[in-house]
Amino acid sequence: MVKINKDYLNLQGSYLFSEIAKKVNAYAQANPDKEIIRLGIGDVTRPLPPAVISSLHSAVDEMGRAETFRGYAPDLGYEFLRNAIAENDFIKRGCNIAADEIFVSDGAKSDSGNIQEIFGKDNVVAVCDPVYPVYVDTNVMAGRSGKYDCEKGGFEKIVYMPCTSENGFAPEFPKTVPDLIYLCFPNNPTGATIEKDVLQEWVDYANKNGSVIIYDAAYEAYISDQNVPHSIYECEGARECAIELHSFSKNAGFTGLRLGYTVIPKDLVREGVKLHSLWARRHGTKYNGAPYIVQRAGEAVYSKAGQAEIKETINYYMRNAAYILDGLKKAGYTVSGGVNAPYIWLKTPEGLTSWEFFDRLLTKANVVGTPGVGFGAHGEGYFRLTAFGNYEATVKAVDRIVKL
Amino acid sequence: MVKINKDYLNLQGSYLFSEIAKKVNAYAQANPDKEIIRLGIGDVTRPLPPAVISSLHSAVDEMGRAETFRGYAPDLGYEFLRNAIAENDFIKRGCNIAADEIFVSDGAKSDSGNIQEIFGKDNVVAVCDPVYPVYVDTNVMAGRSGKYDCEKGGFEKIVYMPCTSENGFAPEFPKTVPDLIYLCFPNNPTGATIEKDVLQEWVDYANKNGSVIIYDAAYEAYISDQNVPHSIYECEGARECAIELHSFSKNAGFTGLRLGYTVIPKDLVREGVKLHSLWARRHGTKYNGAPYIVQRAGEAVYSKAGQAEIKETINYYMRNAAYILDGLKKAGYTVSGGVNAPYIWLKTPEGLTSWEFFDRLLTKANVVGTPGVGFGAHGEGYFRLTAFGNYEATVKAVDRIVKL
Repeated sequence: MVKINKDYLNLQGSYLFSEIAKKVNAYAQANPDKEIIRLGIGDVTRPLPPAVISSLHSAVDEMGRAETFRGYAPDLGYEFLRNAIAENDFIKRGCNIAADEIFVSDGAKSDSGNIQEIFGKDNVVAVCDPVYPVYVDTNVMAGRSGKYDCEKGGFEKIVYMPCTSENGFAPEFPKTVPDLIYLCFPNNPTGATIEKDVLQEWVDYANKNGSVIIYDAAYEAYISDQNVPHSIYECEGARECAIELHSFSKNAGFTGLRLGYTVIPKDLVREGVKLHSLWARRHGTKYNGAPYIVQRAGEAVYSKAGQAEIKETINYYMRNAAYILDGLKKAGYTVSGGVNAPYIWLKTPEGLTSWEFFDRLLTKANVVGTPGVGFGAHGEGYFRLTAFGNYEATVKAVDRIVKL
Repeated sequence: MVKINKDYLNLQGSYLFSEIAKKVNAYAQANPDKEIIRLGIGDVTRPLPPAVISSLHSAVDEMGRAETFRGYAPDLGYEFLRNAIAENDFIKRGCNIAADEIFVSDGAKSDSGNIQEIFGKDNVVAVCDPVYPVYVDTNVMAGRSGKYDCEKGGFEKIVYMPCTSENGFAPEFPKTVPDLIYLCFPNNPTGATIEKDVLQEWVDYANKNGSVIIYDAAYEAYISDQNVPHSIYECEGARECAIELHSFSKNAGFTGLRLGYTVIPKDLVREGVKLHSLWARRHGTKYNGAPYIVQRAGEAVYSKAGQAEIKETINYYMRNAAYILDGLKKAGYTVSGGVNAPYIWLKTPEGLTSWEFFDRLLTKANVVGTPGVGFGAHGEGYFRLTAFGNYEATVKAVDRIVKL
């Protein structure tokens, strides 16, 4: 008789964004006349840049001719893309990362969910609280979490590092030394960043303790501040303790195209084994490469035209962020994020819970946001708005919230 | 201190096709003047059908305009694609499978590797021997295999079901009743098929024992025989015991485009839990959907033009298969497969081992095939050739082999 994976039964409710979608759909069906503005899920709205579109068309044409048709991609990604990534995202920034330390994938969500698999079950996992739910849920599914503890507001064995207004939404070293540490800066959901010297302290901490940092840099393109690092490999010693995840979703609008990459330096060794080899084995055995046409699209992002076009889109979103920040501040809200990140993190007014505020916003302003508590217990009393909407809709949404 | 996943250390060597690629590259570098013909890895060579190319171009254009841009896809796939699949691959064949029992993915390799994750670690896994390596390797990585046993020629805890000329390359019920049973027909690597009444016996066996069959139907498009089932759901009771995997790689040439799907009927329940819910949770948490443009390409496969075009390509490859079968038979080889499947399975001559024959073919005929032992101990003394090559090259390869 087949036994199911019982660790799945420890998961709490459904995936946050599926839950929100259900609520919003129910409201929309009951109120078909209302114009709902969605600033909830972190999905982008601007079209793909012309350089990317043009590259996709040529690659599609190649796939239609026998002489230029491409079948299975190389396990770890095409060299043209890995070289472009190494050059632009690392070498130019003074980070020592080689093309063969880059693993091309179908996005940072898959990678951030799958990366835990190369580690043993008996590792202590630390996450920020609030946190992107994928880090926690995938460790629950792998049996590293223990049961959910309602009093703790989290899983028994997970180490939560509170990020609240008291510490400027930056985690502090936990009492228990963790083995695996998930960090994401600029942060989802709080929009907070940390400066290079603070990140260096985490690298030193990991090296001292033999921990591994899984550094999610999905939002690095939104950084404008000189002191905020774009990559953990800007820190000394990071090649010995850090894995870094990147996405093409937020910088270049690939949410519906699916492309990302993971960096594992060859110097990252634990128990005598290169983590690079383990991930290469996983990639080669359970994955068959990102589509050729999508890898060509990724390459186009690094072209001169591509770089100029994505900059324009980022500026567009950051104008939204500024409008939200400014509008809510003027209306008396306590807000943060939104400067080096596309997320605005606000304190719910009048002591409302996150979900109460979600319901109020949905029903009174017809605006969808994300309840902070959906990201963890320390997100309670907070709320996330994204800058990824259409500008006119964002302005309208802020004006409606301000009038509440 | 981080602990690695030690189950990975039980894996044997590198992934088979990476190993072959290394050998071939080394030979090619040492002999730059030789024209090597590759009939090894099961990669297709014909370009994508015009209907697919045209659909890709329109979808790319949609992604370039704000009004038609698509971000994150629905977790389980776009309805337009799931409906087309349900209608064409199941309803038309009299199989009772609904669109919401279909999970769209980036291919059958990922799905066949990931599906084991929703099951507990303490299940007994049975595979055919020889077998597609992904089924075994992913269970090794998940800790279900135990150590590799050199004498057994396999992993301690895996149940191997020999498929040899003695049983017509069809597995027999094993002595130990397994929990998870991987079956693939038309088979990779042997090219063998089983008829509907035989598959019905497996379904009955699984239902009697509470086992689950993971049925890989990646090659069903190559079936011409009326008695060979295209789907396990043609059998009675399969909705209660079977998961089915499909690919767009071999029927429509999507190896470089990446699209597949998995079917989990809602009647498939173990320990009181719908496996459909577990897989939905995994899909929603660790995956972010196949690219919109690729899902549109998949839809085009089911159009009238698409169906005619893929039929033409399949006929092209089956002409190769017939040429290989015929040529090798005439030359005195013992061959099978190649009728309802794109793979030809031959007995190595003169008692050569699979790898000895691989080396002979590579160095004397400059033809690349796949050593049968790479698929399992009972593949020793056999060799796989694929029909996915260019016709002229295939003819040349066969002529070279015949002259050996």
